[in-house]
Amino acid sequence: MSIENISQAKVFGGWHKQYTHTSTTLKCDMRFAIFLPPNASKSKPVPVLYWLSGLTCTDENFMQKAGAFRRAAELGLAIVAPDTSPRGENVADDESYDLGQGAGFYLNATQKPWSNHYQMYDYITQELPTIIEDNFPVSEIKSISGHSMGGHGALTIGLKNPQQYRSISAFSPISNPMQCPWGQKAFSAYLGGDFETWRQYDTCELLKKSSETLPMLVDQGDADSFLVEQLKPEALAAVAKEKGAPLELRMQPGYDHSYYFISSFIEQHLDFHASFLLD
Amino acid sequence: MSIENISQAKVFGGWHKQYTHTSTTLKCDMRFAIFLPPNASKSKPVPVLYWLSGLTCTDENFMQKAGAFRRAAELGLAIVAPDTSPRGENVADDESYDLGQGAGFYLNATQKPWSNHYQMYDYITQELPTIIEDNFPVSEIKSISGHSMGGHGALTIGLKNPQQYRSISAFSPISNPMQCPWGQKAFSAYLGGDFETWRQYDTCELLKKSSETLPMLVDQGDADSFLVEQLKPEALAAVAKEKGAPLELRMQPGYDHSYYFISSFIEQHLDFHASFLLD
Repeated sequence: MSIENISQAKVFGGWHKQYTHTSTTLKCDMRFAIFLPPNASKSKPVPVLYWLSGLTCTDENFMQKAGAFRRAAELGLAIVAPDTSPRGENVADDESYDLGQGAGFYLNATQKPWSNHYQMYDYITQELPTIIEDNFPVSEIKSISGHSMGGHGALTIGLKNPQQYRSISAFSPISNPMQCPWGQKAFSAYLGGDFETWRQYDTCELLKKSSETLPMLVDQGDADSFLVEQLKPEALAAVAKEKGAPLELRMQPGYDHSYYFISSFIEQHLDFHASFLLD
Repeated sequence: MSIENISQAKVFGGWHKQYTHTSTTLKCDMRFAIFLPPNASKSKPVPVLYWLSGLTCTDENFMQKAGAFRRAAELGLAIVAPDTSPRGENVADDESYDLGQGAGFYLNATQKPWSNHYQMYDYITQELPTIIEDNFPVSEIKSISGHSMGGHGALTIGLKNPQQYRSISAFSPISNPMQCPWGQKAFSAYLGGDFETWRQYDTCELLKKSSETLPMLVDQGDADSFLVEQLKPEALAAVAKEKGAPLELRMQPGYDHSYYFISSFIEQHLDFHASFLLD
């Protein structure tokens, strides 16, 4: 699997680079970005934090706006940011912002016209890590984080793959997609009408059935305009409490859903992941 | 002069806010952004760093990408980011990116069709500070910084107004616009063919004639694709050396012209300005 470098910029002594490649999982060309800290080398591979972005985003939003590189460079963490869906003229799409391209929801679609390309769960958990570990000075040690739809992605992927990741964090995640409009619309389209198939992509449902759970850090702004209708952190908190799961949910007073919020706390998330990645 | 708040987001305990207002200087509606640190209050007004952006930018580029708020919040500095030119359907424009809207060059135009609106020098040095000081919990103590065209703006404005500002910094400034394509194109259009009028907006020419000079910090990436043809920091270094002016020019190996470069060193610029603003 070959990858093509399309940009690079030095930042905090490390490198931000963008690549394109043809994804066999998604059957289209994809772009991703990687931050490599100054200390990354083949003889000293670094662990990786995967970042999953929210609705409408690409690989660029986090890398340009989160302000993560200062601390990631200090800690010696690589960060990988994939796109949020398959892309291209031949890939099914919808005119709304919350379905189709830019809204892959990090699941494997089973319904037409989506199932041919929308296999983001397999892409994030299998194809992309293989590409990253084959092409960059990184180890197989990894954690996962994300925002909004990407917070949902990080939590569901981390809960389903506790052997593959060491820790999970999220900003403003869609915590209970089966019970909110964004999730119901996407799951209906991608997965069809059988609610049983929805449960495998719902953080609250996964947590109910889990036995061993990775450590989780979640930050949620209480001035987030999507909080009540779409995000439902109280549902996540209730299940975690019932299960005794290692969730730290922090309500952050006055913060909204934007990258200004993410930038304010991303260094604490990096420190949280580093405590599991660098031990 | 009334201003209208159009967005606000909490960030690092402070606030990022955008405003629109009708500029009497520019004869059009303008937008600016301000960062207010957590400690800003009417009883304890904070000093202000004015940030001037480069070609094609608005008030948003620096605020979203520079990663400046963590340190500005710690130091207790406000940051104001204006737009880079007058704007609007009735404002003269050019189809190229380096002339007209988004390319005001922080000067007062004397030539038609530009002179009616393109009075960015007066806007930045007079109207905008008055608005800021009338409407926000800030003091009259201020410094100025910028990038590329905005680095040119910061240096020329700071050199011409040593009583108004305390310190100047720049990333990748257009240091000698009379001697580079960007500057020659803009000065010809905005100021006409008399080179004498150009000198008042050329950092090297101003520095040659200056007696007392504010402290200046300039960072320049040596992998910047505009370095040789457009930016000419060596001309600035030569004049500063000849004059014994307090310029620290740092060539940063491997860095380019992007906000990844700016973000890597912005905290050092904030510390530099704070040493003069907070004494």
